[in-house]
Amino acid sequence: MLSVTRTQPLFRQVAADTLQARKNFGIGVRKLSWPSTRHRQRLVILGSGWGGYGLLRGVDRSRWDVVVISPNTYFNFTPLLAGCAVGTLEFRCAIEPVRRYSPEITYYQAWCDEIDFKQKTLKCMPATQPVAKSTTGIESQVETSAQFSIPYDKLVIAVGAYSQTFDVPGVKEHAHFLKDARDARRIRSRILECFEQANQPFLSDIERRNLLNFCIVGGGPTGVEFSAELHDLLHTDIQRHYPRSLARLAKITLYDVAPNILGTFDQSLRKYTEKTLAREGLRILTSHHVEKVEAGKMWVKEQGEVPFGMLVWSTGLAPNPLIKSIRGVEKHPQTSSLITDDHLNVIMEDGTPNPDVWTIGDAGTIKESPLPATAQVANQKAKYLVKKLNKLSKDQEHTVPFEFHNQGSLAYIGNWKAIYDRPNPDGTEEGFMTKETGRVAWLLWRSAYFTMTLSWRNKILVPAYWFLNWIFGRDLTRF
Amino acid sequence: MLSVTRTQPLFRQVAADTLQARKNFGIGVRKLSWPSTRHRQRLVILGSGWGGYGLLRGVDRSRWDVVVISPNTYFNFTPLLAGCAVGTLEFRCAIEPVRRYSPEITYYQAWCDEIDFKQKTLKCMPATQPVAKSTTGIESQVETSAQFSIPYDKLVIAVGAYSQTFDVPGVKEHAHFLKDARDARRIRSRILECFEQANQPFLSDIERRNLLNFCIVGGGPTGVEFSAELHDLLHTDIQRHYPRSLARLAKITLYDVAPNILGTFDQSLRKYTEKTLAREGLRILTSHHVEKVEAGKMWVKEQGEVPFGMLVWSTGLAPNPLIKSIRGVEKHPQTSSLITDDHLNVIMEDGTPNPDVWTIGDAGTIKESPLPATAQVANQKAKYLVKKLNKLSKDQEHTVPFEFHNQGSLAYIGNWKAIYDRPNPDGTEEGFMTKETGRVAWLLWRSAYFTMTLSWRNKILVPAYWFLNWIFGRDLTRF
Repeated sequence: MLSVTRTQPLFRQVAADTLQARKNFGIGVRKLSWPSTRHRQRLVILGSGWGGYGLLRGVDRSRWDVVVISPNTYFNFTPLLAGCAVGTLEFRCAIEPVRRYSPEITYYQAWCDEIDFKQKTLKCMPATQPVAKSTTGIESQVETSAQFSIPYDKLVIAVGAYSQTFDVPGVKEHAHFLKDARDARRIRSRILECFEQANQPFLSDIERRNLLNFCIVGGGPTGVEFSAELHDLLHTDIQRHYPRSLARLAKITLYDVAPNILGTFDQSLRKYTEKTLAREGLRILTSHHVEKVEAGKMWVKEQGEVPFGMLVWSTGLAPNPLIKSIRGVEKHPQTSSLITDDHLNVIMEDGTPNPDVWTIGDAGTIKESPLPATAQVANQKAKYLVKKLNKLSKDQEHTVPFEFHNQGSLAYIGNWKAIYDRPNPDGTEEGFMTKETGRVAWLLWRSAYFTMTLSWRNKILVPAYWFLNWIFGRDLTRF
Repeated sequence: MLSVTRTQPLFRQVAADTLQARKNFGIGVRKLSWPSTRHRQRLVILGSGWGGYGLLRGVDRSRWDVVVISPNTYFNFTPLLAGCAVGTLEFRCAIEPVRRYSPEITYYQAWCDEIDFKQKTLKCMPATQPVAKSTTGIESQVETSAQFSIPYDKLVIAVGAYSQTFDVPGVKEHAHFLKDARDARRIRSRILECFEQANQPFLSDIERRNLLNFCIVGGGPTGVEFSAELHDLLHTDIQRHYPRSLARLAKITLYDVAPNILGTFDQSLRKYTEKTLAREGLRILTSHHVEKVEAGKMWVKEQGEVPFGMLVWSTGLAPNPLIKSIRGVEKHPQTSSLITDDHLNVIMEDGTPNPDVWTIGDAGTIKESPLPATAQVANQKAKYLVKKLNKLSKDQEHTVPFEFHNQGSLAYIGNWKAIYDRPNPDGTEEGFMTKETGRVAWLLWRSAYFTMTLSWRNKILVPAYWFLNWIFGRDLTRF
């Protein structure tokens, strides 16, 4: 899913990106000068997702002493992950490094464990060590697991949420999520591995069928987009480069507990999508309940045991540990996300908003008008906060409350088709481009992603890869 | 190190690459037709490196029933790996999928454990399962560890060699090698991780120094090129995007047991390289012996304990387990690589060459004239075998023995400089371009890599990334 929004004014990107370019081209680079840290208030941003990174890009980094704390060294451009997971794009096209703005800002790769609203300090734990083990398998000699604390003047909590598993046993161990570029890489690697395994000469056709049974649980936009991309992959490049006997055995099944997929979309679009998706090799099983997952098989209430080669799980969001543990603030009874007023200030237990602490993205929700936890909302909240903080830094008033402008939702449904839905505020059907399907929506989908792609590097790489993979086919190297 | 050789005649690549392009552009695609498998002899190729992949590309796949058996699903364009390891290129630019030629050929991702020269069969073990664990961490339900056997009419052994550790304890566990794109990815990830770890606020300067001490053992072309690339990274993008206090602490040390680095190169070039490399932050310690390695530290006979953040090990080649285990053939007493005649046929115990079995690449060496184990030699042997096998498939004689044409050696030594060495057969200094240094050699180096880059996709991507990273700087995302 993706929010069709305008990108940031470009001059900001140009400043960041062409600094180096100008160096190389020998164009004189004006030394940027900003007031020394002493005179600047410290703004701490927790998280580097749609909320945190959006804020980081926009906020006046010359007037704030910006400190970013995030376990992830990069921002995930989530709408492109489904494509990366099947090789339509290179993974790096879907990420932007936080270090892009360093040393102008201070960045720590760490988790925030605790917030002391009275002392205005954060307790943090380095996120480098565990990553070290997982990515390189080689331990470092240095003890980097000590806790450290960071004081703040202003704090923005944008830590996002985790993947919802509804406590179904085995999901965390045996299913893939699709929230991070690393997830996308694991999925891509696993898809091709399933085919290489199934290609081993001594397997029975049943074993092959099981290995090539791809299950997606969750009929939301992410689940639908991934199913569509996977279907495209299986029916183009896989068919072209693997034995026909093998490609024929591959199957995709999309599960959802609800009676329909894409519950947030208009019914006409749901029907259209179901019709488009329900093609050879792609089954949609709604009103189905997964009860247990083990290595290579799961149990579905309505089907019994279902063997699979790969399971992708995308059933919404679960609260972030930090958000769960925070005390002294108002929280949503169900989602336990932080309650904010319409200026996005966190509301303390006594009912008063905290003037120095804001929450944006999936971690927070507005008391009067709760909004869906989407990239679009996070992005708009970030932009709102950019305005507010930039005014604050100039000691100017900013009294306008946050207002959400629904720019509609897009979803790719495979075979060069997409859907676009933008409900009118008054619920009527009138107006330009409220609903689109097929090629038109697909063009809208690609151009929207393209205009939103953040850095110049990726503005060049993304279309380049789209073109190259269209010409030469996707790269099928398991890497 | 790299061999400056002409690329294959392009029409072959065009045929492979533009099949898809023509489909997309709606140009009629002539259905390629070749004799049915029954009438074709089976050619089994073991390995997908410079030898095996080179043979696969060139051999007439319409006249041979080609079966490729390799644990690696892709070919590594090794000369570009050092660049990938520091982010000058994207990893996928340095690899080519074996599946590119499938289903025209049969491919199994497997190890060959045993060769029965009498029965003309191979015993193989799937290589999918262990990879599954390492790459996705998610086990598959299907048992794919059963052994299977493949008969052959003709066999080409191109399994290559392993990294030499001289049985120094701890190297396998705590050092990085640089033979595969996966190694490059681990190295790149580890370099940036060292900086993020060192950036944690509570570390002492000594701890930081240790984390940012990068050691390379082995002063051969690989070690030198990687040291140079790393030096470039530290003194450009790292300095630009990490706190100065941190970047200042980084150190690179290149170790070798020999009194000089680049032993295979001419002395004048060695001196030039040592002068160029010996810059701020890059030390060369020759005649030094590493005795033991542990997590984060190693013991050097001449220095005692040396803490490091990352250790890259590149001290030549060790025999491949298959080659070690093969019985009934002549082997080299020291390297235990397979002895061949000057037609590259394996020589059996009784001294007679085996007419159906050849060895190319690092796994074999010619009895009369042993050659260095380089990509250039492997590549030329592959091309020789292509000619021979294509003649055989037409029942034509091919009596010309293999002859090596030294096209010289190139090595990148950092800071847009390289060296080129092409000794004359007669040992004289005369002739055009026998030795080059600096920018000229660097241009030679890049253009050579470019012309050798195999697929059209990479012919476009490699220069694109060279350009993008020159303009915008390298991408510093740890991914």
